[in-house]
Parts: sequence; structure tokens; C-alpha cells
Amino acid sequence: MQDKAISIRELYAEPKERKDIIVEGWVRNNRNSGKVGFVTLHDGTCFKNLQIVYSADSPFFAEVAKYKMGSAVEFHGDLVLTPNMPQPFELHLSSAKLLGDVADDYPLQKKKTSFEFLRDEAYLRPRTNTFDAVFRVRSVLALGVHTFFQDRGFVYVHTPEITANDAEGAGQTFTVITNAKDPINDFYGRRASLTVSGQLHVEAFAMAFKDVYTFGPTFRAEKSNTPRHASEFWMIEPELAFADLDDDMECIESCIKFLIRWVMERCPDEMDFFERWIAPGVKTKLQHVLDTPFRKMEYTEGIRILQDAVKNGHKFDNNNIYWGMDLQSEHERYLTEQVVKGPLFLINYPKEIKAFYMRENDDGKTVAAVDLLVPGEGEIVGGSQREERYDILKAKMDKIGNTKGLEWYLNLRKYGGCIHSGFGIGFDRLLMYITGISNIRDTEPYPRTSSALKY
Amino acid sequence: MQDKAISIRELYAEPKERKDIIVEGWVRNNRNSGKVGFVTLHDGTCFKNLQIVYSADSPFFAEVAKYKMGSAVEFHGDLVLTPNMPQPFELHLSSAKLLGDVADDYPLQKKKTSFEFLRDEAYLRPRTNTFDAVFRVRSVLALGVHTFFQDRGFVYVHTPEITANDAEGAGQTFTVITNAKDPINDFYGRRASLTVSGQLHVEAFAMAFKDVYTFGPTFRAEKSNTPRHASEFWMIEPELAFADLDDDMECIESCIKFLIRWVMERCPDEMDFFERWIAPGVKTKLQHVLDTPFRKMEYTEGIRILQDAVKNGHKFDNNNIYWGMDLQSEHERYLTEQVVKGPLFLINYPKEIKAFYMRENDDGKTVAAVDLLVPGEGEIVGGSQREERYDILKAKMDKIGNTKGLEWYLNLRKYGGCIHSGFGIGFDRLLMYITGISNIRDTEPYPRTSSALKY
Repeated sequence: MQDKAISIRELYAEPKERKDIIVEGWVRNNRNSGKVGFVTLHDGTCFKNLQIVYSADSPFFAEVAKYKMGSAVEFHGDLVLTPNMPQPFELHLSSAKLLGDVADDYPLQKKKTSFEFLRDEAYLRPRTNTFDAVFRVRSVLALGVHTFFQDRGFVYVHTPEITANDAEGAGQTFTVITNAKDPINDFYGRRASLTVSGQLHVEAFAMAFKDVYTFGPTFRAEKSNTPRHASEFWMIEPELAFADLDDDMECIESCIKFLIRWVMERCPDEMDFFERWIAPGVKTKLQHVLDTPFRKMEYTEGIRILQDAVKNGHKFDNNNIYWGMDLQSEHERYLTEQVVKGPLFLINYPKEIKAFYMRENDDGKTVAAVDLLVPGEGEIVGGSQREERYDILKAKMDKIGNTKGLEWYLNLRKYGGCIHSGFGIGFDRLLMYITGISNIRDTEPYPRTSSALKY
Repeated sequence: MQDKAISIRELYAEPKERKDIIVEGWVRNNRNSGKVGFVTLHDGTCFKNLQIVYSADSPFFAEVAKYKMGSAVEFHGDLVLTPNMPQPFELHLSSAKLLGDVADDYPLQKKKTSFEFLRDEAYLRPRTNTFDAVFRVRSVLALGVHTFFQDRGFVYVHTPEITANDAEGAGQTFTVITNAKDPINDFYGRRASLTVSGQLHVEAFAMAFKDVYTFGPTFRAEKSNTPRHASEFWMIEPELAFADLDDDMECIESCIKFLIRWVMERCPDEMDFFERWIAPGVKTKLQHVLDTPFRKMEYTEGIRILQDAVKNGHKFDNNNIYWGMDLQSEHERYLTEQVVKGPLFLINYPKEIKAFYMRENDDGKTVAAVDLLVPGEGEIVGGSQREERYDILKAKMDKIGNTKGLEWYLNLRKYGGCIHSGFGIGFDRLLMYITGISNIRDTEPYPRTSSALKY
């Protein structure tokens, strides 16, 4: 067994004097005054580092002084408490071993490197403070998702990545082939595409398990070169049977608050880092979401407010506000930031701008859709009550011509169907919101966008 | 809000008299003697059902007696304890509402339906006992995976589905395109394929976070029409830095035991069902794994034992046992079932039959690979210590011609590399092993195999 070392996480969990311990990790920094040297050691088990002190008197001083940034090392020594220093303890080195040296062309050098540069070195960037924090929070947040839903009795369903369906009808999809000469009569005997959403598939499981969720990769073959679009990202898609739009919103609010609290409690060091270096104010923003009951507003009311704002001289980039329009981010942010000053459920949208599966309201004009808008961002969750009435759904699907292949989805309405609702959260965008990271490429381990596939 | 109902899970969690409660769910069975009627209600929140009793005296008797299997219903009534009956309580009906009727062509009828038939009706099969149990255990097991690794400090990494690399060099991959006319100079400007493994990508993260894992979908474009092969399945791939093969095996053994215990403790009803109806003996088999320290054996020793068995008259389908062969399932099972009578780590395989990234042992002939073999199955985990020596790895990669595009992977060895190890568990196969389900198609919500893509 190699691994007799104690982790830096364990040292911080129980700060005390410790004799003759072993630590392993990577050198983040190494400097000396000629008399005494200091190595900042990072072992990846927590955001914090361990300070190693080595003396010029020691036989290994010259050797350790040469350890370069990025080297893999093993250190032995005594852990000593340092009550008068910024850090709670340090390791007094008694012996050292270089496990893995660093070649001179190592791309991560001390000089500050840009996020753009680091994207190109995606396999190395988790070694930097920012990405150490981002990817640890990503991991913690993912466990939070599972914990929230499973504690509430939701069943996790692995909906397929390769699909014969296309949930939204819109949105360009990737085709999956083995033989470019005949992509249709191929492996699966028909066109196979990468999923854009697990919703339709998971609805069938809600009709058996009541509350279900899917959490997995989804894909968009759209060449949108923006900071918010990637061609591969993870989606959280819960679906609740015997639940209307109000039940849906209760679940959304609980979920968002749970996940924010989950990260803030488990990743205080990372959140402090984001607050200081990435997005000053991010912690206040999140705390405000936790402390504020989410408001509800009809889309129609939202339009009226936006029209009044224009009348009163507010300048949007798009000042052409009319009932039936799809709101842009600036309009959503005005409502959540200026009007209600907190998270806002905007509900009951015109049916023409929403998906076919959303439940038509009695007014014949709107559907029971909901978008959750939050200050500093705009929309972060979209959901709806689903159309449970066979005839109405079939007429809509026939009209847009997507009944073929989705007969099974329609059938859910004639085989013991019931009122049900669900929502979708873009996991990567939620991570952007929580960390304050402004480009989706910096929240994904190996981001996939058009024309970028190095790894 | 629609959802004022109490779940059947809650009723079983705290069995007591309850006045005037509401339950919702689906009719699993409905029969009456003319004097009294019984509905078996399933609401998906647990494996167990609730018995509803309705009397011929009630004004709604004729109505409720017509509720068909599969209907969505809402029942009001008093919950009454029944200490002398098999079930702990029943609901005495005071009113009922049909929420969703069932059309006459409903494919799930009372007659026992085969697994083959149900595969074709994948969107309905979670409504059956078997698939209710399988997919609930799948969900519970998935949470177990995250819990095991995150409790140990592992960071969860979402390695990409779309990739420019191909971990194993072997194995046919799917190509991802948007334009069949030019699949190379397409969306990503180069050939993009669906991942067969996240290992190489996650190794880079182990060099930053020490202990990491990935858990997500992987793909094989192989037309293997067997009960154990699917073209899409989930893989668990942990990677441990500063860890040798012994550390790897310690983690594998802890992980497998943790996951089995996790499911047995959380899903006793489901496990009883599998024991009784699907795979008699499955609980004993799993308990034996929990109670047995895993043994270790050299591949070379295994070959010798198999050769001796043949000499002594044992008949394998393939009796041609020689050093350097890839063991078949019958050989693996002989070693684990007949020889050590328990879980067995077979280690140090000939390098020619293992992947390029496995660490070469000092004998120059074998690599530090490990397969975990278990009684009743054969191999369920494969792992290895990774080759951390730049020159040796580069020579191997150059020889098989896969250096191009994987320079970054090689670079991990010259930028602060260290000894590291990892393993892979096919999640769906582990689920087969735990549930006793014998076809991988019956463990996946919407199975993807060649020539089957209905949903």
C-alpha cells in the first residue's frame, strides 16, 4: 500500500499537534530566504493548502529548495500549531521525496493566466485555485441534487442519451452514426440523435413512481458562441404526478433554496474565494435568495409593467413590448431586480411561445408554464404543468406534426394519466449562478462548444 | 395545490389509525364479492401497496367496482389497523374519484407478461412489480455510489460524452455529426465520437484533486446481441492518486461491500421480491460477499490452477488453457466459485491482453491489472495501476499508434505525475448482479441495443 499519508482535509478537520506524519500533494509555491524555506502544499482534498517549513540547517535544504511549482512530493515531519499566524498550523519538515518532477515547458507558471488560456489547457486547469473551487463545488452541488430529490422520495431515472425522439421539436440535434454513407439505416435501423431533454421519457416513469427526476447530459447542436451556451451540458429534470403548477413552484423554490444552502454550508472556503476574486457580492446575492419568499406574477401582468416602464421613460435595448412576445433577459431582469426585488415566478405564458406539452389554461390563450427569474441572472428554471387531456394534446401534436413516433407519449394520457408537472434546471447555469463564474466554459471539466474539441 | 395526499410510504413508515386521509395512485387490482370490494392501490412511493376496502352499502360501490387496472384514482377514507391480517392496515373508503381512466387497448393486462413483451412497452413496464423494484433499486444504488465516494472525499467529475479521444483504442465507437455529407469537418471541426470511458479525462483531475470519480453514460457501437451488452450504459470510474494496486483493491472491496449493504438495508421489500420471484438465492449470494474477505491471486497462479483442473478431468467449453490467454467467464467462475469460494482479485495479467495505460511490472511480461471476480457472475470490476513513467508509456503508445491527440495524457507524466490507480464498474451489470436480473435490457429504463430504438 502506498497511501499512508494523512490528507490536508483531515488536518483542518482536527487541528492539533501531530508527530511524524506524512503528507503528499503538489507544490503550489516554494520560496526561501536562504535561512528558511516555505512550500505551499496542495493535496486536492480541500481548498486549503498546508504550509511546509524547512530549515537551511537541514541536510535536504538544497534539494527541497529546487522543487518546482507543480511537482508531486511526499513530506514527512511534525505538525505544529501556530496560533499567532494566519494559518492554524505548519509542518516542520524532517524528510522529503520528489515523486514527480515538472518539465520546463509546464504551461501553468506563476504569472496570472487568463481563463481563455486555461480553457485551452483544460486538463491542467483544475490545478489552479479558481478551478479547484469551481469543480469541487460542481461535485458538491451534484450530490446536493441527488440528496434533495431522494430525501423527498423521488426516484432517479437514467433517461437515454441516444434517442428516437426530440422533446422540443425545436433545437438542432446531433445525429449518432456508425456509417456516414447511410446514417438512417444504420446501427439502430433509424435516425438516432442525442437527447435534448429527458422530460418525455421521464414523464412515463412519473406515471409509475409519482415523483421522479433525471439528471444527466443533454446536447444542443447549435453554433451559439455565447458565454451561456455549450453543446453538451447537464440537466436536472424532475417530474411530479398528481401535481399542478403550484405544487411545481413549491418544489422549485425548495430545491433552489436547498441547493444554495447546501453549497454555502459545505464550501465556505470556495464561496469566500468567489466572493473575493470572481464575483464580489455573490454571497449576498445568494443569501438574499435564501431569505426571500419567491413571488408569483402573471406573464400578462409582467407585460403591463414593462409597457408602463417604457412609457415612463425606461430604455430597454428592445423597447417593443407586446403581449405574446418572448421576453429577453433584460426584461426578465427588470422584473426580478427592479420590480419585485427578489426571485420571481412568472407564470401563464402565451401558448404560441411555449412547448406543445404544456397545459392549456381555460382562457384558451395561455399555458400553465412557469419561469423562475432571479436577480443578477434572469431565468434559471423553466417548468410547466403538462397537458394531461388526450384530445387537446393530440390536436396540438397533430398540428405541429410531431405525433409520429410519440404515440407512446400520447398514450400516457389514456392509460391512467393524471395531472402532472415538472421543471428543468440547467445544472451548469445553476453552477454559474452560485459561483459567479460568467462563462459556462469555465464550469465544465472539458467544455464542448462548436469548433472546440481538443480532448 | 393538488397534492394534499399522504403517500403510502409515509403510511408504512408510521403505521397507526388515521382519520379522513387522502391517497392517490394507480389501481393494481380491483375485485369484489358483491358485498365488499378490494382495490390494491399503488402510488409508486414504495414497493408496497395499500389495500382499499369498499362496501356494497356505500353509494359509490357500483362506480368504484368499475375502476380498471391501471386507472389513476383518488381515495378518501379512514386508515384502520388490521393486526390479524397479512397487511398492517387498510383504508375504509368514504369517497372516491376517477382521475384517469384506462382505454381498453391497455397493453398491461392481468395475465403474466413476458420480459420480452415488456421491453417493447418500455414506457409502461415500470408499472409492474418487477420493474418497480428494479428501477427503484437502480435509483437507490446510484445515490449509494455518490455517497460512498463523496463520504471518502472523492470529487465527482463530469467527463464529456462527446470526445476527440478513445480510451481503449479498441471498441467500436459512435460518431456524432450534424452533417452526414462531411462528418469530419463538421460541428467540431474534427471527428467527434461518443465516449467509451471517462478514464483518461478523469486521470487529469486525479492529478489535481487526488481522489476523483466519474459516473455517467458510456457507449459501445458493437452489435453484440447478448444478455450482457448494451450500446449505452452507465459506468463508475474512480481514480486515486498516490495509490498503488493494493490501494485500488482496498477501495474496490470497500465500494462493492458498501453498495451491496446500502441496497440491502434500503430496499428490503425489493430484495425479498427478487429472492422469491427473480433469482432465488440472490440474498444469500450477496450476504456471502459481505461476509467474505476478498482473496488475491496472480493470473499466473490462476492459469496453473485451471491447467491442473483440466488435467484432473474438469471439462471447460474451452479446455485450451495457456499463459497469455484471455480468460473466459467459465474460467473466471471456476476460480471464484470452485477454488476460492468467494470474491477473488485476479492480478498481474499478461501485458498483451490489457490496455496500454496499465503499469508494466518489473518482470517485463505482466501489468498491474486487477479484475474482481465474484461467484455467480465472473468479472464485475476491472482496474489497474496506471503507467506513470513517461518514457515507458510513450513507447507503448507510439507502438500502437495512439499518441497523436493524446499528448495531453502523456504530459500528465511530466507535469508532476505520481503513482495512481483506478477502476471501472459497469453500473448496469452491478445492478444485474444485485437484483439477479439476467438481461441488461431489463435494468435500463429505455435499453439501447443494436436495432432497437423505439423511444
